[in-house]
This record gives sequence, structure tokens and C-alpha cells, in this order.
Amino acid sequence: MSSQMADGKTIILRLEIDTNLAQFGRAATAIEKAKGDIIAIDVIHTDKNKSIRDLTVKIAEQGAAERLTNALQSLPGIRLLHISDRTFLLHLGGKITIQPKTPIQNRDDLSRVYTPEVARVCQAIFDEPSKAYTLTIKRNTVAVVTDGSAVLGLGNIGPYAAMPVMEGKAMLFKQFADVDAFPICLDTQDTDQIIAAVKHLAPAFGGINLEDISAPRCFEIEQRLRQELDIPVFHDDQHGTAVVLYAGLLNALKLTGRSLNEARIVICGIGAAGTACTKMLLAGGAKHIVGVDREGILTADRTYDNPMWQWYAEHTNPQRLTGGLAEALQHAEVFIGVSAGGILTRAHIELMAPEPIVFAMANPEPEIRPELAEDIVAVFATGRSDYPNQINNVLCFPGIFRGALDSRATTINEEMKVAAAEAIASVISDDELNRMYIVPSVFNARVVEEVRRRVIQAAVKSGVSRRNPRE
Amino acid sequence: MSSQMADGKTIILRLEIDTNLAQFGRAATAIEKAKGDIIAIDVIHTDKNKSIRDLTVKIAEQGAAERLTNALQSLPGIRLLHISDRTFLLHLGGKITIQPKTPIQNRDDLSRVYTPEVARVCQAIFDEPSKAYTLTIKRNTVAVVTDGSAVLGLGNIGPYAAMPVMEGKAMLFKQFADVDAFPICLDTQDTDQIIAAVKHLAPAFGGINLEDISAPRCFEIEQRLRQELDIPVFHDDQHGTAVVLYAGLLNALKLTGRSLNEARIVICGIGAAGTACTKMLLAGGAKHIVGVDREGILTADRTYDNPMWQWYAEHTNPQRLTGGLAEALQHAEVFIGVSAGGILTRAHIELMAPEPIVFAMANPEPEIRPELAEDIVAVFATGRSDYPNQINNVLCFPGIFRGALDSRATTINEEMKVAAAEAIASVISDDELNRMYIVPSVFNARVVEEVRRRVIQAAVKSGVSRRNPRE
Repeated sequence: MSSQMADGKTIILRLEIDTNLAQFGRAATAIEKAKGDIIAIDVIHTDKNKSIRDLTVKIAEQGAAERLTNALQSLPGIRLLHISDRTFLLHLGGKITIQPKTPIQNRDDLSRVYTPEVARVCQAIFDEPSKAYTLTIKRNTVAVVTDGSAVLGLGNIGPYAAMPVMEGKAMLFKQFADVDAFPICLDTQDTDQIIAAVKHLAPAFGGINLEDISAPRCFEIEQRLRQELDIPVFHDDQHGTAVVLYAGLLNALKLTGRSLNEARIVICGIGAAGTACTKMLLAGGAKHIVGVDREGILTADRTYDNPMWQWYAEHTNPQRLTGGLAEALQHAEVFIGVSAGGILTRAHIELMAPEPIVFAMANPEPEIRPELAEDIVAVFATGRSDYPNQINNVLCFPGIFRGALDSRATTINEEMKVAAAEAIASVISDDELNRMYIVPSVFNARVVEEVRRRVIQAAVKSGVSRRNPRE
Repeated sequence: MSSQMADGKTIILRLEIDTNLAQFGRAATAIEKAKGDIIAIDVIHTDKNKSIRDLTVKIAEQGAAERLTNALQSLPGIRLLHISDRTFLLHLGGKITIQPKTPIQNRDDLSRVYTPEVARVCQAIFDEPSKAYTLTIKRNTVAVVTDGSAVLGLGNIGPYAAMPVMEGKAMLFKQFADVDAFPICLDTQDTDQIIAAVKHLAPAFGGINLEDISAPRCFEIEQRLRQELDIPVFHDDQHGTAVVLYAGLLNALKLTGRSLNEARIVICGIGAAGTACTKMLLAGGAKHIVGVDREGILTADRTYDNPMWQWYAEHTNPQRLTGGLAEALQHAEVFIGVSAGGILTRAHIELMAPEPIVFAMANPEPEIRPELAEDIVAVFATGRSDYPNQINNVLCFPGIFRGALDSRATTINEEMKVAAAEAIASVISDDELNRMYIVPSVFNARVVEEVRRRVIQAAVKSGVSRRNPRE
């Protein structure tokens, strides 16, 4: 049995029935006796000797699941392979639903939302295409697009297995910013096909959130879609991470009396997220950035096959430092990790300048656990929810899309990203700011409000808005 | 002013302001004095001399809209171009919304529906792909796919203008059968690109409802998608129409004491819908079908460039009749029109056998208006909601997809379509059946129930189900 006991009202039992020893009816009887109500049966596998079935069972009370388990385990020829736990139960049938905004109660309603009256609305959009923004879901709807090639820490698990993440993202969009988001999990990992598919399905959407697409394809996909579509395209793994990192760093620098353009910064892990973070820091005025990856410090004294590294070497490390992570960290004031769990040691941090700032954002295992170094660090941030200072994209994407949609922006540009970062940082007042509190909680409602407000301002000011909403 | 007065609580006023004569502030003041609350302003057009703006205004009471209109019309330099009416207001911001099934109230919730816990759910689907049906929205979600090439009677209005129809369809799916449906309006009319896009976005969906795609592309698109996807693909304009027509005809034949295999049937309009209707009737045992289109009766004595017509000529009209509509109708017992408004005359019907059955389904204008011929016809049906016997696809698609999803069918086959038609017909008992009541109302809840039940039976029996749900 592979899982913990459920505490919901519905559980799923996976049974293996040895058909020579037992019949399904026995299990059913045992379940009913234990006051479970079988509401669905799925046959997973069946052959001459055994049958594997998933039973969805409603249980009336807490203890029933345990009684039921015991009863099944005592039956000869029946093996209980698995009971779904609460996380799995939350995912049963998926996590989002599509609802009509108004009920269709009679013929009159039907004739307005569908034929024949709907034809007038179609005609109005045909006559004036921008009306798609007022008369369809476009103005509030975002596609969460992935190919499943780089999902969480799981890697290339494909579009089907990526769905729960995309559905989760859609939930967050709605809950935090009232954005309608729908998961588009593409059954192709070909760059051109992904671009074609997203362009083709774009009419219904006011924005595209790219998600969990592996580098380097994610760069070309984002870049070409940005060029070819007139709605915002935002690769959250790059820019969401960069915005929240930048917000956190602004407050960490303020707290330690430093300025961005003087700070000596080491970025470890020069992939999509590391590059996006670096670009934001450079745009914000950072001058002393050194990148480190598997081949050590990236330097313009060398050339790299990886075009991302080549770009990086040309735009950072003005002193042309060489060596590995230890060399990079000598006297550095800021460490930003978007690499792999456990690669940073206490000894590494001891090489840094006094009062160092450490952002160990590798997920789920940070570059170094806070408990190993927090006594020698001024500010410590991770990507995890179980430590202070969580650098979490949820602080950014709901509000930045809310602002982009409300200003009907054609794109999400650098100005809007910087505005979002400053908004996130600003939610924490000078009085509140301390080493355990450099970024607000994702449940702080002021975050979305403030991000939206500043993103709209930035969109209007930078000339990419098509509408100037009232506050 | 192009539209009627609104009776909702929100109206949209389109104002043209002559900037030499008036300022926007004047209009705003007038609206506020009339107790309207301006909640949004969209600038539609602006140049040196004039500015066109849409004002979304909340009004407290019924009379306010009228007072407001009068007040604005008396202002010099301001022209009220348009007030949105109730149909338009129902479409404001679109007609569907995406909702989380459970709220995310705290970190614990967040960690289950999103990182880190969601990773276990992803992994489970990766390990066993069929779990996409239990752990994602796939099992209840249908894509409503169009390219906007043949929308209602409007023709090729494109994907943006098609959205209101697809959103309406999504509402109907939910309201009538609790199916989550999402509109996919494709910005391409290339057959291969449409097929590629639908294949690529299929993972999230348990079924594909093709809609308003013009012939002959709709045939190839449907056929190839049916071959290449393992989920049902259903072109509603063809098969939905055919199923409901077949249901209505079964009852009309029963009422007039005829049998399908002996009935002499004329089908007028040999496009996608006409061909699909014919195939169902042939499958049901009809022997005497004659097709008529612009070039007259289709006959195997000729060859046709249009492959649909060629197929048709080879499979119908066993007596090789020739001529036009009048010749076809001589002694015919059933007329089925899926052609164009007004092409059938009373004189035509007088050529038919006694007690003829007329299905005049052209939309919005039937082949002949019922009032012109109902006294000489045994049964009269149209596609309209304002006459008896509406042949409406809404009777079919919600229930047929409900059944296909619940049985996890790989396809919607002929057996399932016939089952759906028989189910629709069966909802009307022999006692109830009369010439004004051959198909049930779309609001009759028994329709979806009965269609679902028989479609599941047919899916199981024909071996395309992957699950046998309990009733």
C-alpha cells in the first residue's frame, strides 16, 4: 500500500483481485458492510488470473476508511494496492470548472445567448474586431500553455502529466486576480508547431502564459510569439521568477544599506530563469554580475556553444573573473541560486563579504538549507513555503496579467516587469521590513492590487496600453 | 441610434463628441445628473475634430436610461450613436467563466493544488497515462472548435466573430449536461493546420466538438481527427442535425403510419448537413432517397466535380430520377430541407403524396413558412424556436457527449448516433405524440438523461467504451 489514509468523504481504492481465489462481489460486500458506498468502478487491468480495479467509495465518517481497509485486507485473494490521499482526492476530476455567467432558463434566454440573437453580436465583432474585447471572454482570459517538457523538478513528463500544474495555475489566476485561465497542454515539443498552435488558438485569449517549457526552446517560442501576437506573452518561469527575485533583492539591499548598481552579485545556474533574473538586474542598474554554471564562471575570454552562455559572458563579468563558484563568491555581497539543491556550502558563504545576501531558490531543495548558514547571512530567501522570504511566482503572475488585461496591453514589457517588482517590494513598509520579511505573503491581497495599479501605469506610460482603466 | 432601450442595470453608450463644440466633461455631468454611474470609458476613435467613446454606465432604475438618453441628446456637439440592448449586455465580458472547484484559503491548500504536492499527482499520471481521466479535467471537458468559416447564416466571419456562438455552445453544454466546454476559435482556415492545432491541444480534452466549419473541409478535418485522436470527434453541424432530424422523422413516420424503409424521401440541399442526414437515414434502412441541389436531382447517370455530390449520386436515387425539385417531389412523402429560405412553394407540396411530412430546416428562414402550407401537411417541422417541432441540435449534443464522456468512449460511432436519435424520439410517449409535438423541448430534462443512457449502452455494446458507468 503506497499511500496515507484519506480524511475526505470520498476515497479511491485500488484492488487487485486474484480471480482464482476471490470474486469482486466479496470485496463489494465487505465495503458495504463497512458503510462505504461504491459510486464508481474503473477496470484498470484484467487477465485470466487477476483483475485490477479502482473503486471510488463514499464514506460517511472519519473512521470508515480504516474499517474498510481492515475489512478488505482480511479477504483472501484480494489485495488493496492503494488508497488515494487528500491531495489526490482534491485532484479527482480536475481542479477547475467552466460555468455560464447567467443561467439559460427559458427560450428567451436561449435565443439571446445562442441562435438567433447571438448572430447580431457576432456581426458586431465582425464589423469591429476590437469588440472581441467587450463582447467575448477575451478581455479576462489567459491561456496557460505548456508542452510538459520541464515541469517542476520532474523534467520532461509530457502534456498529460503536466495538466495538474496548469490547472493549479488556473486556480491561482482566478483566486488571486479574478483572471479566467485555461490550461493548454500541447502534445508536441517542436518549436515551430508550438508557435503555430498558440498563434492559431489565440483569438479567444487576452494573454498567453507560457509555463514549464524547457530551454533553449522557451526563448525562441516566447520571442516569436511576442513578435507575432498582439496580446501579452509571458514565460512565467523566466520573468515571473525574475520579477519576484528583483522585488526581494530590492528590499534585501535596502535592509542592508546597499545599492543595486554597486552590489557584487553572483548568479549560479545560467538557464532560462538565471538569464531572465540577470536581464532584470542589468536593466535595474546592476553593474557587477558574475554568472556561474557547470563550466565555472562565464567570461568573455572564452566562447561557448550554448548561445545563452555566450550572450551571458558578453554582458556580465566586466572584470573577467575566472574559476569556479568559490572564486566567484570571493567578497561577493549577493548570491542568487537558480541551480540545484545542496551545491552551496557554509564555507562558500564565508568567502563572501560581511552581511551577505543569499537567495537559494533551487526547488524543492535549495542550494543550501537556511539552518546551515542563517547565522552568518544578513538575508536568506528560498523558493520554499516552509521558510521565511519565499520567492514565489504567485506574487507576480496574477497581478501582472490583471494589469496587462485591464490596460489591454499589447505586451508585457520591461517597464511593466520593473513596475511589478517595485509594487511587490512596496507592499512591505519600512517599519515592517526585516530580515525575515522582505517579500509579502502570497495571501496578502494588497500584492495583486498594487502590482495591477503600477503595471497599468507602466503600460500606459510606455505606450503599450489600448485602454486606460479607472482605478 | 441603432438599437432598442436596455432594461438591465448596466448600459453602454457610444458617444461621438465634436471636440470643437463640446467637452467630455459635459456628457459626464449630464449622465451623473440623470443618476447614471460611469464605471468604464473606452476610447474607440479620436482625431482633431471628434472623439468616439464607449461609456459603461450603471443605472439604478428602469427610467434612468431614458432620462439619460434625453439628457445626452439635448447637448450640443454630442451625438449618442448607440445604446447596447439586453442581448449585447448579456455578452459583456463574455458568457462563461473558469472557476476553481475548491478555494485556496491557506498555504496548506496551496501546497496541495500547486507545488510541491501537485508533483505527486503529475508523477502518477506520468506513470499511468490513463489517470489523466481521473486526476485532470479531461474526463468532463470538451473543446468547441471552429475556424469561423461557416457561422450560423453569417458565413465566413472568422474566429473572433465566431466566439459568441462557441461561448453560447459552452453554456449549453454545461447547463444541459454538466459538460465543461471551452471555445477554441482557430485563426487559420487551412485544413492541415486546423488538424495539427486540434491534435496538439487535445490532451486536456475528453472530446472535440467541431462547429461551423465550412464544407468540404469539415469532412476531411473530422475524418482525419477521428482517425488520429483517441477521443470522440463530432461535427455537430453534420451529425447533431442528422440525429435530431432522424429522431423527429421517426416520430413523424410513426404518427402517419409509415415505415422508414418504404418512405419516399426528398432531401434538398446536399451540403454537410444534408449528407449527414442522408447517411443516418440510409443506416436506419431508408431506401428511397432523392437528393436535390442547385443542379437539380443528383443521379448516378451523371458525374459531379463535387466529391460529396458524386458520393451522393452513387448511394441514393435508385430509380435514377432526373429533373428539378418539382420532379423529385412527385408523390414523395417526406421533404427534408437543409438548403435556403423560401425555395419551397405550396405548389411544390401539392405535388407530394397525401399527408406529406415537411422538415423545412433552413435557418433562420425555412424553405417555406409553416403558415403557408400547414393545412395541407401532416407534420411540419422547422429549425426555429417560434414554431412547433423545432429540430434543434441542442437536443443532441449535450447528451451524446455526456454519454461519450461517461463511457470514456474512443469515438462517437453510428450506433451511438442512432441510439441518441431513438432516445430523443422515445421521450415523447405514444399518448403525447401529435402533429405539433414530434420532438421534445430542449428544456425537457429527460432528453439528456435518456440520450446519455442509450449512448452509453451503444458505446459499450459496440466496443468503443473504456468504462461502464453505473446508471
